[in-house]
Amino acid sequence: MPQRLAEAVGAALYARDHAAQGLGITLVEIRPGYARMTMTVRQDMLNSHDICHGGFTFTLADTAFAYACNARNLVTVATGGTILYPASGRLGDRLTAIAEERHLQGRNGVTDVTITNQSGTVIALFRGQSRRIEGTVIAAG
Amino acid sequence: MPQRLAEAVGAALYARDHAAQGLGITLVEIRPGYARMTMTVRQDMLNSHDICHGGFTFTLADTAFAYACNARNLVTVATGGTILYPASGRLGDRLTAIAEERHLQGRNGVTDVTITNQSGTVIALFRGQSRRIEGTVIAAG
Amino acid sequence: MPQRLAEAVGAALYARDHAAQGLGITLVEIRPGYARMTMTVRQDMLNSHDICHGGFTFTLADTAFAYACNARNLVTVATGGTILYPASGRLGDRLTAIAEERHLQGRNGVTDVTITNQSGTVIALFRGQSRRIEGTVIAAG
Amino acid sequence: MPQRLAEAVGAALYARDHAAQGLGITLVEIRPGYARMTMTVRQDMLNSHDICHGGFTFTLADTAFAYACNARNLVTVATGGTILYPASGRLGDRLTAIAEERHLQGRNGVTDVTITNQSGTVIALFRGQSRRIEGTVIAAG
Repeated sequence: MPQRLAEAVGAALYARDHAAQGLGITLVEIRPGYARMTMTVRQDMLNSHDICHGGFTFTLADTAFAYACNARNLVTVATGGTILYPASGRLGDRLTAIAEERHLQGRNGVTDVTITNQSGTVIALFRGQSRRIEGTVIAAG
Repeated sequence: MPQRLAEAVGAALYARDHAAQGLGITLVEIRPGYARMTMTVRQDMLNSHDICHGGFTFTLADTAFAYACNARNLVTVATGGTILYPASGRLGDRLTAIAEERHLQGRNGVTDVTITNQSGTVIALFRGQSRRIEGTVIAAG
Repeated sequence: MPQRLAEAVGAALYARDHAAQGLGITLVEIRPGYARMTMTVRQDMLNSHDICHGGFTFTLADTAFAYACNARNLVTVATGGTILYPASGRLGDRLTAIAEERHLQGRNGVTDVTITNQSGTVIALFRGQSRRIEGTVIAAG
Repeated sequence: MPQRLAEAVGAALYARDHAAQGLGITLVEIRPGYARMTMTVRQDMLNSHDICHGGFTFTLADTAFAYACNARNLVTVATGGTILYPASGRLGDRLTAIAEERHLQGRNGVTDVTITNQSGTVIALFRGQSRRIEGTVIAAG
């Protein structure tokens, strides 16, 4: 039941997520407090040093974070985040982001996201803070 | 002279910055340790809650950060960053990011970026860590 | 008037601040959204590498942050913080922390603290997040 | 062998760790990339709101972080950290910090620390960045 709800929420979020769609981000798996998403580094994501702009890496992390946070069908928004980049994404890299809730107390949560490339190298470590606001993602019932 | 160099570096960075161009980010002003850039929130930057995806806000901040860090023509990369979102960007908002170097010691630096919308409301506060690596952005001389 | 209130609040906070007193932290200046405090690095603040334990540097920063946040006589608590250490404190160093509010919107604020030693070298850059809760520090009137 | 080395390093670090000793921090367990330490909240750790000063919570986290990072007998220092406080420590609380290495690549690492009280409530979530420098903690051999 929570799993079926999580999947319905994931589908609903994705259907209206212009940003994720435009970047070619795919939702692979969603569970309460968990999401796994992938993105392939495209030409238009490269910065002047010819590596994946940290902003797109961050966007992938932030997206996985958002889906994990909202998977219980309670609208939750990001209030902040930190990211560290142990390595860089390159053109054509297939990045996988795994978001896992670390803590949830009342309306405030902390979720960690790890991004790896196709070889398993860690590209980014993200930690996001979230706050639940009013409303549900999809109609309850 | 440092100012002319900063402007030449800014132009060179931008010419090969697929990410900034694709997002419609504009470089308005660049000085050593300083950059001002703008971006208008587009439909394809909205997330499922119909507000600007934090990742694009972050990308704007991270871009201004990069230009400020590289303006002395010494190649410098981001190693991490933190962002707080006091408010959200909305469709059509014109966001301005101002990046200012807070600290530089040897190869390591800290640069703060503030993003405001057209009304002066603060949308994001970013703090980036940078490390200088080998090389120059444009040929010296 | 706001300035007199800030000074009264600072004195009241300090009188019951066991931690600050025990560490020899001194309140030098307080204004709404601003505080300047000093601490001398003692033997019992050194870690195994014989440098000032980052925790005490953080405590000084966090203390200045708290005084700046509470100076309007509205009880405000820290919800998180980040610190970067460009350099280390040494035995006998006289550290000065300057806390300055960067942003305040409703109950949520962001305050930056810079810690320097007696030579002006930056030892730490701290950014704290705060939330105002119920109550006043001293009786109003 | 790595385990015996970690324990010898832990003992050596603690013997000269004035800060940890002075705060009554105890090293309970150490392994490569891991440390568990405890601290009881004392009167002199309380701030003006009568809760444990965030700086002491941070110091406990930072200490566990340092022991975990140095447990392979390679001198490693903190370069930065972030902390979130989901709840507050109170007088007499027995806090336990568990530090676990999340990532290590070359000389740079990321270690997470979770602090709970005697009831298992999470008091703080810390993430530290480290860099290995020259030298060993104890003589090799």
